[in-house]
Amino acid sequence: MTMPVVPAINLAEKLSLFSQHWSPKIVSHYNGNEIMVVKVKGEFNWHSHPETDDFFFVLAGRIRIELRDGVVHLGPGDLYVVPKGVEHRPVADEEAHLLLIEPAGTPNTGDAATAAKKAQI
Amino acid sequence: MTMPVVPAINLAEKLSLFSQHWSPKIVSHYNGNEIMVVKVKGEFNWHSHPETDDFFFVLAGRIRIELRDGVVHLGPGDLYVVPKGVEHRPVADEEAHLLLIEPAGTPNTGDAATAAKKAQI
Repeated sequence: MTMPVVPAINLAEKLSLFSQHWSPKIVSHYNGNEIMVVKVKGEFNWHSHPETDDFFFVLAGRIRIELRDGVVHLGPGDLYVVPKGVEHRPVADEEAHLLLIEPAGTPNTGDAATAAKKAQI
Repeated sequence: MTMPVVPAINLAEKLSLFSQHWSPKIVSHYNGNEIMVVKVKGEFNWHSHPETDDFFFVLAGRIRIELRDGVVHLGPGDLYVVPKGVEHRPVADEEAHLLLIEPAGTPNTGDAATAAKKAQI
């Protein structure tokens, strides 16, 4: 008997579906967290998340995460978790593609008033 | 002023530090979850996690996740979250490298008696 094939989630395929920067798209869920892909370019705003760590994994390109007292440089295959409450600013000189994980409903800017609306794709 | 460089976590580098199969190594933490890399080859045991979803992301190679009523085929850049309580068996015909996320203390076999001891690297 051949088992039915359950589709995996291919992140490159998901990333091909949109072009906006700094607009995370939900691709799956894990224990009440949203798993997202995002395209970034340029400087984001300084912000922090008082209630949650912030998971970054670089799929393509390069970014830096500026902290108030240091900087993290990330390329493909690099991961960094910004601890909760720590101010940070992601910056990408050229377009980069990231995998993000945050609890459902976390505003990407740290502020619900300015946060991107996250669609599932 | 040049900011101090905070090291990112390079998963390929972490994977170069060990060779055992089915022995997840903790590389970071996220909100009480362990972020792990693992090398897999062959068939794991059938198991489920009654309390948590199970996050799989393929970094290199190919695996399949057998479910009781289907099968998920994953290659590099593919992600799948096994819902909590769902029986599954990961299988890799050739060595594959994965990123895993599970709440701290989750037994990889679904059973504390047979679970791998997870070291941080």
